[in-house]
Amino acid sequence: MPDNEGHPDPDEMTLAAILNALNDPHRRRVIRELAQAEDGEERTCASFDLPVSKATLTHHFRVLRESGLIRQVNRGNSRAAQLRRADIDARFPGLLDLLSEE
Amino acid sequence: MPDNEGHPDPDEMTLAAILNALNDPHRRRVIRELAQAEDGEERTCASFDLPVSKATLTHHFRVLRESGLIRQVNRGNSRAAQLRRADIDARFPGLLDLLSEE
Repeated sequence: MPDNEGHPDPDEMTLAAILNALNDPHRRRVIRELAQAEDGEERTCASFDLPVSKATLTHHFRVLRESGLIRQVNRGNSRAAQLRRADIDARFPGLLDLLSEE
Repeated sequence: MPDNEGHPDPDEMTLAAILNALNDPHRRRVIRELAQAEDGEERTCASFDLPVSKATLTHHFRVLRESGLIRQVNRGNSRAAQLRRADIDARFPGLLDLLSEE
């Protein structure tokens, strides 16, 4: 079962949810930047400078979180996003490499 | 430039169009079945038995064709669909393997 914040376990991640999450250029940009950064790097939502409203930003990160691509953790006044690289590589090997083709 | 029927050249295939094409369970089923068949196998649209109207079926195959995932060829009274396996593997290595995870 997903936890209270909607993070699925690795075996609950589905290709359908992952493809839906990646079917948006802003969400792909977030995942690509996290994939290109050092493993475990934490970024705030705002740090990606997506040209969208705060509500849309929140929506994008919810879709990413609920698909299993990222984990969001509370850090004092803000939330940080981390790529779930090991979980993604275990369930969908090669997926992150595909994003670098764009 | 895509040809008269909307087939893009390999270097015109984009991850955005591919992910959009794959963000649908019926379209994924078509690609998965073609990927699991022998290389070069031709199938008619009707042979996939998708539970959709004829207009929707036509739409799904247009999206697949214009993304570059399939090639459609005229065979007398019907059109046959072929997976563009070599083009997909060259541009997006690993993509077809991901679909078998579902």
